Amino acid sequence: MSHVEFRTSPAQYRHWRLDVDGPVATLVMDVDEQGGLVPGYELKLNSYDLGVDIELYDAVQRLRFEHPEVKAVVLTSGKEKIFCAGANIRMLAASEHAWKVNFCKFTNETRNGIEDASENSGQTYLAALNGTASGGGYELALACDKILLIDDRSSAVSLPELPLLGVLPGTGGLTRVTDKRHVRRDLADYFSTKSEGISGKKAVQWKLVDEVVPRVRWQEVIAERGRGYAGSASRLPGGPAIELTPLDKTTANSWATSVSGEECDVKRQVSYPHVSALLDPGRGVAEITVTGPQEDAPASMDDVYAQGAACWPLAVARALDDLILDLRTNETEIGTWVFKTAGDAAQVLGYDELLLANYDRDWLAREIVLYWKRTLKRLDVTSRSLIALIEPGSCFAGSLLELALAADRSYMLFGVFEDTDPDAAPATVTVGPANLGPLPMGNGLTRLQTRFLGDAGALAAAEKAAGDPLEAEDAERLGLVTFAPDDIDWAEEVRIAVEERASFSPDALTGLEANYRFAGPETMETKIFGRLTAWQNWIFYRPNASGPDGALRAYGTGKRAGFDRKRV
Amino acid sequence: MSHVEFRTSPAQYRHWRLDVDGPVATLVMDVDEQGGLVPGYELKLNSYDLGVDIELYDAVQRLRFEHPEVKAVVLTSGKEKIFCAGANIRMLAASEHAWKVNFCKFTNETRNGIEDASENSGQTYLAALNGTASGGGYELALACDKILLIDDRSSAVSLPELPLLGVLPGTGGLTRVTDKRHVRRDLADYFSTKSEGISGKKAVQWKLVDEVVPRVRWQEVIAERGRGYAGSASRLPGGPAIELTPLDKTTANSWATSVSGEECDVKRQVSYPHVSALLDPGRGVAEITVTGPQEDAPASMDDVYAQGAACWPLAVARALDDLILDLRTNETEIGTWVFKTAGDAAQVLGYDELLLANYDRDWLAREIVLYWKRTLKRLDVTSRSLIALIEPGSCFAGSLLELALAADRSYMLFGVFEDTDPDAAPATVTVGPANLGPLPMGNGLTRLQTRFLGDAGALAAAEKAAGDPLEAEDAERLGLVTFAPDDIDWAEEVRIAVEERASFSPDALTGLEANYRFAGPETMETKIFGRLTAWQNWIFYRPNASGPDGALRAYGTGKRAGFDRKRV
Repeated sequence: MSHVEFRTSPAQYRHWRLDVDGPVATLVMDVDEQGGLVPGYELKLNSYDLGVDIELYDAVQRLRFEHPEVKAVVLTSGKEKIFCAGANIRMLAASEHAWKVNFCKFTNETRNGIEDASENSGQTYLAALNGTASGGGYELALACDKILLIDDRSSAVSLPELPLLGVLPGTGGLTRVTDKRHVRRDLADYFSTKSEGISGKKAVQWKLVDEVVPRVRWQEVIAERGRGYAGSASRLPGGPAIELTPLDKTTANSWATSVSGEECDVKRQVSYPHVSALLDPGRGVAEITVTGPQEDAPASMDDVYAQGAACWPLAVARALDDLILDLRTNETEIGTWVFKTAGDAAQVLGYDELLLANYDRDWLAREIVLYWKRTLKRLDVTSRSLIALIEPGSCFAGSLLELALAADRSYMLFGVFEDTDPDAAPATVTVGPANLGPLPMGNGLTRLQTRFLGDAGALAAAEKAAGDPLEAEDAERLGLVTFAPDDIDWAEEVRIAVEERASFSPDALTGLEANYRFAGPETMETKIFGRLTAWQNWIFYRPNASGPDGALRAYGTGKRAGFDRKRV
Repeated sequence: MSHVEFRTSPAQYRHWRLDVDGPVATLVMDVDEQGGLVPGYELKLNSYDLGVDIELYDAVQRLRFEHPEVKAVVLTSGKEKIFCAGANIRMLAASEHAWKVNFCKFTNETRNGIEDASENSGQTYLAALNGTASGGGYELALACDKILLIDDRSSAVSLPELPLLGVLPGTGGLTRVTDKRHVRRDLADYFSTKSEGISGKKAVQWKLVDEVVPRVRWQEVIAERGRGYAGSASRLPGGPAIELTPLDKTTANSWATSVSGEECDVKRQVSYPHVSALLDPGRGVAEITVTGPQEDAPASMDDVYAQGAACWPLAVARALDDLILDLRTNETEIGTWVFKTAGDAAQVLGYDELLLANYDRDWLAREIVLYWKRTLKRLDVTSRSLIALIEPGSCFAGSLLELALAADRSYMLFGVFEDTDPDAAPATVTVGPANLGPLPMGNGLTRLQTRFLGDAGALAAAEKAAGDPLEAEDAERLGLVTFAPDDIDWAEEVRIAVEERASFSPDALTGLEANYRFAGPETMETKIFGRLTAWQNWIFYRPNASGPDGALRAYGTGKRAGFDRKRV
């Protein structure tokens, strides 16, 4: 699999058109059959692969920042009689397991992002199914706030994965059908075994769609509903659109030189203005450093608008987002990500304060905070071990402290590095308003609440320390960091942690982390990434799906799948 | 794998001793190394296999019914320096996937049953770790209300599955550590990667155990804590102990005769006094019929005590429980269970009424209801498609209606079978008090609440109909049954439903059902069966665990496991 880039822009789209007409945007899926990300399959029937979904993700992001006037988004298809046939089957059948799982994760995140826009950004999504929506196509509609289906005696909604492919719908369909749309579970069961799906009035009665519209009135009704949504949505006011300028991303290889003078150990370095990652394949580690702002936060949002995409918190969110996606997709053998920060904690807290003070009155302030929320959630569901290293000169405060709280484990230096920088100020961490509510995890709790689940006293103590720069002893006592070794033990403890991680079963680590990171309550979102995804991964991997006689391989060949009939 | 029976009794135990001393029982695990259920492994270090756990399950059940005077149960080990080493690794390594998964499911259910006894039966479990508790051994302790660990400089608690075996703890450990004991997630992460575990004061500080007790005071403190629990537990009063007499279970093979006169199609028939199952391997179906009571419910609990284990609701719960376990373990290729009932709905409701009226004042009434609750929960997590057929002469009312509500789909005959029994009364279903609260699912909701998730109006309408015998039209309108075909369509619709089910991927069906059955909120229990189990199944199945170089195979050979380092 060649290197995949997630950076794109409307001018480069091959599969989508984004039309904006005042407060209503229309996002038209019109997949180029020949435009697959990888050779070997044709994207027939508006089916999609990762490349198609990268464009969708980009469009949803740009609608937030570049089109603040938009309050309703109509998602529809540019094809006749077909809305979307879901993920391309030949692509899935030919892909290796890690690719399939990563692809589903990204598509899930994009659909969650659509729901986040409907819920928190005053941009309501309306699925206008002008043809059949099957499998991932219907799941895309499920991520929208409302679903309209054309009534033309042939168009239907369906989840045919189980009967046709021997797998589950991979992007939240089963969870959203019952938990979001409240389709009765026995009807949902029947629906999911009927490959031709359900159409017309029954689709409405069963709550699978909100409305069916006769063909002759289709255009008119969709336009009407779009205007209606736009009228009732509550998008915040604020300044002008912000252009999401091309990310300033550079990749370089560095060669370490061994004692004998030979070049060895190629390391890839990925850099953005405030984020860099040094990839060490030998140790299976990426060291990710986030740099704080270079100056104090501006006094008002006016200056943030003036800075645009270069504004520190937006630039960091974009860089982290791209880096997470890049490493997840392209560097599957780098199993541990080590997070560091460098900079001034007060400046980080200053930016947090400005954005949070304007969260309820300025669309851009809110969008930047929401972007941070989604990016941190992306980290939470990343199948890599996350370790935070908190050293002198770092700035784990407020929004950046979330990186340490998202980590599976954190190490904070007690004191300073006596040999290299004895005069440094010891590292501190600072709890700030950003840690107390605006950046919830998928489980609906803050990372602090999840950390101190069931221990109200410890949570209160940590929250009460907000604003205080806490040195290692206090941070450890308050439970904000895992370990606080001193200079003498530091290198050894960190080395062991990283080496141990690289020695363990990558699969078991993924499972361990997927369970421990989501202590406490579950939501639709965590159910999609936990319960549903885990079952889907298992099913994908079994011979009944992916073996030589499995359903995924048999599909379209005219042969019946051969199943091991044992129930597990 | 030879046939496994779940029926046992203390006189037959090879691995456990049950000592009762007034209100305190002591359950001593003393595994016979040579007593494995299957040849090929020795049960060293108090490790367990399914046979050991069958005895534990039996003991927990008998404590409820045969020892109503017991209010505290001390769970400890008969070995020196070792409490329990968890599931036997050689057994796991040699078992096929379906066996491992089914084994873990049963052990999970038994541990949930221990928690149910602590929570609802006034029998509080205390884990007295007189030696190291590792892996499943510590998970068994986690199922108890309190954990005491001996402080002898060697005994520890640990979850070494990930570092040693490349899998996850399989019986709820990860979920209970954070969600029940509220161990901080980063400490939990560290704990689960440290194969030697944690002991002494740190085990208390991290909340892994409740108390560490010096060796010299061990016996004294355990006795004291046992008496203390017994004193504070609130076991209900009531009549004398009920003996769980040997189940009257018969198994016979029947041979159908084909048109040409040849014997074909061997069918196994399993029968208990009020429950029978006809197994049809050819169609992959078991037809399970539950018969209602033969007479009206007695007027008071006195008569229930007099009837003892023969009392209808207790006898049915025991039979269903045994049947579910038998079919899950021994009949893995029978993927669909069809439920029918036969009898008088009013008599079923009469028994429900008697038990529920005494639920808060009589231990036996409560125990029978709790047993129904657990048995229905066992059905909910069973990896078989469940279909209810509601025909004339059936008695799907109250507790028996739960079987239809637990089903993935139900068919209710509209009218009667005109050819065979035109004068029959049409089938009815009746909502009763048993459907309105006392038999919650693992998600904490009733099956009606789960069914009508997010539709308060439909729920209220169904609940309001309580007491009315509802014919097919009304039952369908109220959403209590999935379909109500008439005589003309009945046979065809049912046949298609069953045949279709048999044609689908068994894995995909398991995943579909595991998601749709648990619409709505998640609890610790559903997280264990959903999120945790699904990840564990996936990990178990991957070559990193079970392949020739996988960690499960490599364990104990001196070789290191060979891992595919790709993160998925």
